[in-house]
Amino acid sequence: MYPKSLKDLIEAFKFFPGIGEKSAERMAFSVLGLEEEQVNFFRESLKEVKEKIRPCSICNALTDKEVCDICSSSLRQAKLCVVEDPKIVFLFEKLGTFRGKYHVLKGLISPLDGLNPEDIGLEKLIKRIEDEKIEEIILAFKPSIEGETTTLYIKRILEGMNVEVTQLASGIPMGADMEYVDALTLERALFDRKKVE
Amino acid sequence: MYPKSLKDLIEAFKFFPGIGEKSAERMAFSVLGLEEEQVNFFRESLKEVKEKIRPCSICNALTDKEVCDICSSSLRQAKLCVVEDPKIVFLFEKLGTFRGKYHVLKGLISPLDGLNPEDIGLEKLIKRIEDEKIEEIILAFKPSIEGETTTLYIKRILEGMNVEVTQLASGIPMGADMEYVDALTLERALFDRKKVE
Repeated sequence: MYPKSLKDLIEAFKFFPGIGEKSAERMAFSVLGLEEEQVNFFRESLKEVKEKIRPCSICNALTDKEVCDICSSSLRQAKLCVVEDPKIVFLFEKLGTFRGKYHVLKGLISPLDGLNPEDIGLEKLIKRIEDEKIEEIILAFKPSIEGETTTLYIKRILEGMNVEVTQLASGIPMGADMEYVDALTLERALFDRKKVE
Repeated sequence: MYPKSLKDLIEAFKFFPGIGEKSAERMAFSVLGLEEEQVNFFRESLKEVKEKIRPCSICNALTDKEVCDICSSSLRQAKLCVVEDPKIVFLFEKLGTFRGKYHVLKGLISPLDGLNPEDIGLEKLIKRIEDEKIEEIILAFKPSIEGETTTLYIKRILEGMNVEVTQLASGIPMGADMEYVDALTLERALFDRKKVE
């Protein structure tokens, strides 16, 4: 029914998460309304991303260099924010307030998904802590069984090393309506309550 | 903050309607997870669509040929479904029940948007009705002021020609919850009520 090239493009848009038939059709149609330079720019950046973006050889964050800008910087503190996914690095960088570096694991410990402690790249983290004389690692995993497991495991294997291990605070999200906060979060916020200063 | 190629790709995804910063980031990241062949297929189909898809020289529907498959078919009836946008043709074709042909206007009459009756390509429609001895035209415009105006205008200019002019039925959508049907639709459905047969 669709001309072949249009049909192909609709199929291609469906490669993306959350893009079903309808959205793929809408996006493919809107390509017809783009300027030729826009389509060329789009095609070129797809190629460039696929060719150039790779993990930083030190921290595993996404970069187009051998070593990413953050790892190369001499202005960053000897603190590592440890995350489970390279995308999370950008979330922290957008804040603009964290002045340390990052370390990206290959996921969280999750034996059910076949991810055991030896699979998530912890040796590289430990080596970095030693080599770079890291003073603090901040474990920034998602609040879940896997996140907690990984946090506790890392805390344990770093015992005896001269590095402080912290994790993100859990609690009420800023600006949240109290009546919509779920019970688990409320319980955690109550448990971790802090002195008003 | 983002490596340049990734930043470019995020910007490129924002060309699309309904794609904001967050969705563009998510889609750009997911390109990293695609196979190389998928990215190549995507890039190639973007190019092909932009190069090959154009309006059929007879009906203005989207095609990769000079004359679209529907206009070329000898099996189609001498009826024209007249639509305001080439995308609508595919909606009807998906039904698989309409056996006529189509004619795509260049929009609906809308003086406020600078679209006067002489701007929407009606001469071509009239010429077709004569040349192809069309027996019926079905006006399938969206239910709006512009749709109604265009419907009435076309009805008037075709007076005296040997062609039946019909329009889509308005009324309660199939499967709708009666309590959520808006007042205008309900009023129209009541006004256009039909005998139970």
